[in-house]
Amino acid sequence: MLPNLTPDVELAERLFAELQAKSFDGVGITREAYGPGERMAHALVTETAQALGLEHRVDPIGNLYVTLPGADRAAKRVILGSHLDSVQQGGNFDGAAGVLAGLAAVAGMRRAGFTPARDVTVMAIRAEEAGAWFPTSYPGSRGALGMLKPEELEVRRSDSGRTLAEHMREEGFDPGFAAAGKRAIGPDDVAAFLEVHIEQGPVLDAEQIPVGIVTGIPGSRRLRAGRVLGEYNHSGGTPRKYRRDAAIALAELAVALDEAWCRMEARGHRMVCTFCTLATTAEAGFTKIPGEAHFQLDVRSLDLHSCDALFELLHDKVAEIEARRGVRFELGAEGGSRASPMDAGVQAALQRAAEVLAIPHLVMASGGGHDAAAFAQAGVPSGMLFVRNQNGSHNPKEAMRIEDFQQACAVAQRFAAEYGA
Amino acid sequence: MLPNLTPDVELAERLFAELQAKSFDGVGITREAYGPGERMAHALVTETAQALGLEHRVDPIGNLYVTLPGADRAAKRVILGSHLDSVQQGGNFDGAAGVLAGLAAVAGMRRAGFTPARDVTVMAIRAEEAGAWFPTSYPGSRGALGMLKPEELEVRRSDSGRTLAEHMREEGFDPGFAAAGKRAIGPDDVAAFLEVHIEQGPVLDAEQIPVGIVTGIPGSRRLRAGRVLGEYNHSGGTPRKYRRDAAIALAELAVALDEAWCRMEARGHRMVCTFCTLATTAEAGFTKIPGEAHFQLDVRSLDLHSCDALFELLHDKVAEIEARRGVRFELGAEGGSRASPMDAGVQAALQRAAEVLAIPHLVMASGGGHDAAAFAQAGVPSGMLFVRNQNGSHNPKEAMRIEDFQQACAVAQRFAAEYGA
Repeated sequence: MLPNLTPDVELAERLFAELQAKSFDGVGITREAYGPGERMAHALVTETAQALGLEHRVDPIGNLYVTLPGADRAAKRVILGSHLDSVQQGGNFDGAAGVLAGLAAVAGMRRAGFTPARDVTVMAIRAEEAGAWFPTSYPGSRGALGMLKPEELEVRRSDSGRTLAEHMREEGFDPGFAAAGKRAIGPDDVAAFLEVHIEQGPVLDAEQIPVGIVTGIPGSRRLRAGRVLGEYNHSGGTPRKYRRDAAIALAELAVALDEAWCRMEARGHRMVCTFCTLATTAEAGFTKIPGEAHFQLDVRSLDLHSCDALFELLHDKVAEIEARRGVRFELGAEGGSRASPMDAGVQAALQRAAEVLAIPHLVMASGGGHDAAAFAQAGVPSGMLFVRNQNGSHNPKEAMRIEDFQQACAVAQRFAAEYGA
Repeated sequence: MLPNLTPDVELAERLFAELQAKSFDGVGITREAYGPGERMAHALVTETAQALGLEHRVDPIGNLYVTLPGADRAAKRVILGSHLDSVQQGGNFDGAAGVLAGLAAVAGMRRAGFTPARDVTVMAIRAEEAGAWFPTSYPGSRGALGMLKPEELEVRRSDSGRTLAEHMREEGFDPGFAAAGKRAIGPDDVAAFLEVHIEQGPVLDAEQIPVGIVTGIPGSRRLRAGRVLGEYNHSGGTPRKYRRDAAIALAELAVALDEAWCRMEARGHRMVCTFCTLATTAEAGFTKIPGEAHFQLDVRSLDLHSCDALFELLHDKVAEIEARRGVRFELGAEGGSRASPMDAGVQAALQRAAEVLAIPHLVMASGGGHDAAAFAQAGVPSGMLFVRNQNGSHNPKEAMRIEDFQQACAVAQRFAAEYGA
């Protein structure tokens, strides 16, 4: 029997306020990966661990582990973790909510005098907002798991121009650890990884449900530098048959993919397809037919076959439009990632916890990528809990109600107390 | 009987070379309206008139008239004219070709000792490239014709920020003349106005015909500041039904209008429809659903009913897309112009001249706007001759073969010698 455990949400509220005060940039929140903002947040979590009398250690690349010892210190641990960095001018909750949820959970256990069966570790992961700072994915968690490739340490930060390895060293860490493929944690010493995170999307808010249990993190196929090349001509003097209009060709491709997505969704595919940018260039202007247009395409699904099917159609349509309109598409380098399904046992345990606590929850796919993908790919049973939030994320208006956060903390705490016990 | 008249194309070639040398800006040709580039070109034409012993005068707003006296000085004159200004980094022929064609024609008459029945005047018009310098249409020709509204003198030049009236004064002219609605020329003293101009489109080149006889200058309906407002959201985390994607909404509108244009053309409408710009904004970026997009739309036809029909469809489609996609279109202020059919008698005279000279010609609509539209609207019988050209216009690659120019000069010269004789 578990005691009447509750998370210490007041602690989390104080920490949210302190993070906000120390990383407000005048517009939003900025906590640079391997920079002053992230350093400040890690220091705050370390102080909190000390104040709570919890064990804490830092791995060679800077991830922080705060541990409430379990009854069996030799048993594999449960990790509750997320990241503390943010995008530039972002919000206060993206990432930090997961770390503070972990702290609230273990602080609540300590307050109740509860000793879990196995160690429960709160992990503050470095540099998850890779897209915003370093052009690589999850260097903190993948570094801890021994999955970072040496060349990924040499990518350069967008603002400073210095490499990830240099920034690690400047913060007092040892990129050589990751370069050598060493690992700080892995499937043989972690029983489960749970990441609490704001949803970043509108689904829970629209459905009026506070908590989401995530089925998986989608894989993707992406074009970040697509171009369409036609010919600039006078918009008055060039009849239809002489035109090579890059913008209308791109519009046609975008509409064709959007219609195909709509049809596929009706047939049961679960996916998203977004032209994130779609634009004529600076050379365009009034009385000119656009000779060039650029685009970025982001296609995601838990089932990569859905992405593949849409890309098949993309290639067919590109060839057809090129032939008909006399334009040329340059799709550029394709990026992407494989899907990371969340562990069925972790999902089941989260559902049991939510049901026992009578907390309404929605079983749903993640939209964005998260550190949990790295843990799943390393073979650690992994799960995610989404917290209902408003106004998306990666912007200063990002919002989250503390009542919803409390519900997510309660589920995470119960999960950590019971998992594998 | 006419003597064996030929245009003095060598004179025009020398003047083209001198204009090129004196207005090359390092990339293309720049002759600022009511600025140094245009001033230089007017001075060159004045020197040429003096060297040829032709009459010349300048009206109060700076248009230049070079006249070969006719047998009957009291008869209405024939004007051969075009403009000498250019866009920034444009080509050497747009505008100047029409003025030099006029000079070549009258110089050839003088060389042959030919006295026309009525005065033949070469007119160098000011500031035709209004879109590039001043946000108003044809201030030079409309000012000469007494059609410029006082408020149009107060529009500001894009680079200097000073008004059209100030720029006129700085060049030594009197904007008060135009503001008072006075006119330098009009239907009671001009028998016909003929403008030779490069085609600016690909039709003559593709059809392998050197000269075009223009049926009219199209009217237009234009949106220069259209916007679509949706909502920025996470491209991974936002399912289809929660999206308000401004870019895909705009792409859908563009494709719908393009398809409608295609259908209308098949039913005999002669028109063009161009999304000159179509673009997500600077806030867009990878992993975001576009919350805003901008566009410029240019619809033209000699028959404004065709433009109206397409705008009917635009309004229907906007309402339908708004309702289905949860976005809002702001079409902004609509601009436009009425169509200016060229005079049937002038067209017939041009065709006779081309036939007598055995010069292949195509009867065709203009794509762009020209000073000839202002003359037609003032009630002066007006016509245009297009010269086959390559690489469009308003760009440094604009090209024209001198053989084609020579054919146009010959038609213009014969027209001027015979019109109303």
